[in-house]
Amino acid sequence: MNALTVLISCPDQVGLVTNITRVLAAHQLNIIAMREFVDEANKSFFTRIACTGNLGDAEKLKEKLLENLPNAAEVNLITQQEKQIAVLVTKEYHCLAEILIKNQFKTLGANVQCVIGNYESLRDFTEKLGIPYFYVDHTNKDKSEFEAEVKVIINRFEVDYLVLAKFMRILSADFVKDYAGKIINIHHSFLPAFIGANPYRQAFERGVKIIGATAHFVTDNLDEGPIITQHTNHIDHNFGVKEMVRAGKEIEKKVLLEALELIFEDRVFVSGNKTIVFK
Amino acid sequence: MNALTVLISCPDQVGLVTNITRVLAAHQLNIIAMREFVDEANKSFFTRIACTGNLGDAEKLKEKLLENLPNAAEVNLITQQEKQIAVLVTKEYHCLAEILIKNQFKTLGANVQCVIGNYESLRDFTEKLGIPYFYVDHTNKDKSEFEAEVKVIINRFEVDYLVLAKFMRILSADFVKDYAGKIINIHHSFLPAFIGANPYRQAFERGVKIIGATAHFVTDNLDEGPIITQHTNHIDHNFGVKEMVRAGKEIEKKVLLEALELIFEDRVFVSGNKTIVFK
Amino acid sequence: MNALTVLISCPDQVGLVTNITRVLAAHQLNIIAMREFVDEANKSFFTRIACTGNLGDAEKLKEKLLENLPNAAEVNLITQQEKQIAVLVTKEYHCLAEILIKNQFKTLGANVQCVIGNYESLRDFTEKLGIPYFYVDHTNKDKSEFEAEVKVIINRFEVDYLVLAKFMRILSADFVKDYAGKIINIHHSFLPAFIGANPYRQAFERGVKIIGATAHFVTDNLDEGPIITQHTNHIDHNFGVKEMVRAGKEIEKKVLLEALELIFEDRVFVSGNKTIVFK
Amino acid sequence: MNALTVLISCPDQVGLVTNITRVLAAHQLNIIAMREFVDEANKSFFTRIACTGNLGDAEKLKEKLLENLPNAAEVNLITQQEKQIAVLVTKEYHCLAEILIKNQFKTLGANVQCVIGNYESLRDFTEKLGIPYFYVDHTNKDKSEFEAEVKVIINRFEVDYLVLAKFMRILSADFVKDYAGKIINIHHSFLPAFIGANPYRQAFERGVKIIGATAHFVTDNLDEGPIITQHTNHIDHNFGVKEMVRAGKEIEKKVLLEALELIFEDRVFVSGNKTIVFK
Repeated sequence: MNALTVLISCPDQVGLVTNITRVLAAHQLNIIAMREFVDEANKSFFTRIACTGNLGDAEKLKEKLLENLPNAAEVNLITQQEKQIAVLVTKEYHCLAEILIKNQFKTLGANVQCVIGNYESLRDFTEKLGIPYFYVDHTNKDKSEFEAEVKVIINRFEVDYLVLAKFMRILSADFVKDYAGKIINIHHSFLPAFIGANPYRQAFERGVKIIGATAHFVTDNLDEGPIITQHTNHIDHNFGVKEMVRAGKEIEKKVLLEALELIFEDRVFVSGNKTIVFK
Repeated sequence: MNALTVLISCPDQVGLVTNITRVLAAHQLNIIAMREFVDEANKSFFTRIACTGNLGDAEKLKEKLLENLPNAAEVNLITQQEKQIAVLVTKEYHCLAEILIKNQFKTLGANVQCVIGNYESLRDFTEKLGIPYFYVDHTNKDKSEFEAEVKVIINRFEVDYLVLAKFMRILSADFVKDYAGKIINIHHSFLPAFIGANPYRQAFERGVKIIGATAHFVTDNLDEGPIITQHTNHIDHNFGVKEMVRAGKEIEKKVLLEALELIFEDRVFVSGNKTIVFK
Repeated sequence: MNALTVLISCPDQVGLVTNITRVLAAHQLNIIAMREFVDEANKSFFTRIACTGNLGDAEKLKEKLLENLPNAAEVNLITQQEKQIAVLVTKEYHCLAEILIKNQFKTLGANVQCVIGNYESLRDFTEKLGIPYFYVDHTNKDKSEFEAEVKVIINRFEVDYLVLAKFMRILSADFVKDYAGKIINIHHSFLPAFIGANPYRQAFERGVKIIGATAHFVTDNLDEGPIITQHTNHIDHNFGVKEMVRAGKEIEKKVLLEALELIFEDRVFVSGNKTIVFK
Repeated sequence: MNALTVLISCPDQVGLVTNITRVLAAHQLNIIAMREFVDEANKSFFTRIACTGNLGDAEKLKEKLLENLPNAAEVNLITQQEKQIAVLVTKEYHCLAEILIKNQFKTLGANVQCVIGNYESLRDFTEKLGIPYFYVDHTNKDKSEFEAEVKVIINRFEVDYLVLAKFMRILSADFVKDYAGKIINIHHSFLPAFIGANPYRQAFERGVKIIGATAHFVTDNLDEGPIITQHTNHIDHNFGVKEMVRAGKEIEKKVLLEALELIFEDRVFVSGNKTIVFK
């Protein structure tokens, strides 16, 4: 008896749920929970099905599903394996610490393979928790050189996702393409408000009464990737930029970790520049 | 082309989703959205399926579904008809007003047939908005007499639900049984904290930092019926009982209206003393 | 024994609190609650002091306070008089209804003098609740002509604030100047995200996971006036534009009413393009 | 130029603010921010005043304040010294980790002197972050013996507060008395709902739609001490006990850390079984 998660995305058409559930039943799989969504604008269908049963010949099941689905369907069969991740950081500790603590106590739903930083600031802390730390200096070199060095490190590991935990360098379109759909970033504002640098300074100048943070997949349009989770908190006139930054960090780590949990449980689909999140 | 909502609850067993979707497909119904839940403790299965298609012979479809489900299955086929409700009130206006305003502008998802009050306080307002108001005095008579009078009024209308919009009389077990699963109450606390009378006074004495409200189905155990929705708001030491009551009213109306919306859209199942809410 | 609220704003300097409280004590006023804030960027001081006592000669007290404060101080002595307001609307009912219901049951903290609409849609409802409704057609005339007609109506009443309760016409700089600091608007987005038209459409296109609303004072920079209150709510991929609009209306009315309550209780100062809100 | 926080509590009477601010002015102290509250039920006055200036002879200032206040006034003059704390734990890591991480990066507002646990589970992690860990076995000894051992350890350090970070032993009235007003606990429910053991099991059985956590001072009435902060989160029918526990831990650490921040900044007064929190 295994647990199996079936992820399917395909063009929408009549009868998809029936076809899919019939194939699963024929393989003696019992559906525990099923979620589906039709993106009407793009005529796309998405489903996440949690099953139990004897998985048997997974390739055969996949084939059978594809036979019963429209062309261009994507089928993904996931058994309970933990994801592997690399974390990229600059100087701020709060998101990294949250990740490493959960990693340490086996509640992250993923294994941190390594931490890569463009400063040395977080080495000591990372190594205390037993995770290898790699320093890649970004000064005096162009972006492609810097990114090539980062890639060499990442490629030493088998990594499912790159987590930018307050990594303050903008990645090139080429780098992003190499890890398409695999890079998650935490942006320190409630996007699309305050795109770009110094969002808390911008928020302070505007006199907003709420600040927020956004976890999103990285695409080559800066701050424009598909949003996974967002949260906001109330602030008031007593908050200067410093207080906003402090309060913002609490939101950032909460939002990022929530996004990671959803991703590690295979609950997030990307459709164009949006996400479908089956909570 | 009609919209159809299929509600099914039954003992859980392997293959239910497959069986159900196969029957729907055979009737040329297209599944738009499907939610299901297995209550592991009670081995019960619940599903809500939104379909489109030509409903055709509804009785036949129901029969076919029942044939393919375990004994004791309940199948409910709902076409887009609005619910009819009666509202019971005492003196406070805030929940009633929210209901009547949405009724007035056709955004309630139900039609208010009448308002019944044990005071005259809200007659004027109710009638201004064109809804019949019935006054049933509760003084100088015993509960069964009072409730008999209320029932006479309710029974003049075809009513799907009774909404207790700050109705401050406790209903007898007999009355509740007559409308089993059909009475929704708003309780002015975050249940199970502060059961019973004067919850805001209790909250003040305890020095809590949050107050809340709870919408629930009424059973004959006071304040113990299945909870539909709850919300809370932060308060601080500046809140006396009066300020709590004022802030609490905003939560109460929000919670009650949210519960009603869910019920009127057939998104709420009751399982024992709990609800399953397919948002 | 009267209740008195003292509002003071002035350039910051050492000893202000001491000076002010000494003058109040000399007038036999007892301080019940005192809030103050120093805007460091603008070197401005703001205080709101709730007192009880015999107000006596208010002019004298004001003079005495001004003598003990820097030049350019503004002193405002408020006794418990309710504010008078006019409400401007277009077609949407949800904010207007919330205001008129609270007005009806005397819990608004202000009196609605009249409702002015550029459509007839809300006349019937407004008049049912006993408030005069004035229709000012905006078609076939230029903005100044339209606004002149609106002003004629407003000026028939003694009005402290104009509330734009989903009034969908942009007011001219001239009009705004005539009621400087007196116009409150509800914007249907979490500003500064989605400035301008169709914010929910913009939010849908961007795939955000949160929507919000903003109550602000109107200045001649559209959507740029000082923000009073904001709230947000989570949404998910199931929300199309229609669902966002529906959910958004609940936030809008909550945000607007919260802002009005704060303003009617004299808890809001404006400092540049920001507000100081003494909750 | 020093920063000074003045905390005063005393029986309420007319003129307190004036008296206090006059004394501060006479000492050339400039008031930066002032908060006060009158507990009408107990006729008590509380104020927190942030000043800058040359503190000079603190004893003299305190004397002068006391002279100008009613008998039984408590005056506390605090210069910017960090608090020292001991943390008590059992097996759960989430609250401890949050505290130790902030301690590590100097953002806790206090210094962790030691961690005391009645299991060895958290030793390794604690020591990795450079904090001494003391194991006190609670088995095979009575409570007074166990607590005596704990006290010996605590007394080796100069400790301002004891933080019970999911410490699952009930402390005796004697122990609590020895550290009156100095022990902060995190309770894994939204008090007063689900007092006592297994709150998440209770919450599951009741079918609530919200779970919460409460940080409070410990008194000898279990779960009845003055509440400092509370938060809640929505859950739904998909949450079993295990999922509630997981979600609850996120709330618990947030609530506890928020309470600690307020306490370490001297923003919390206790008045009977309530707190006054000057945020």
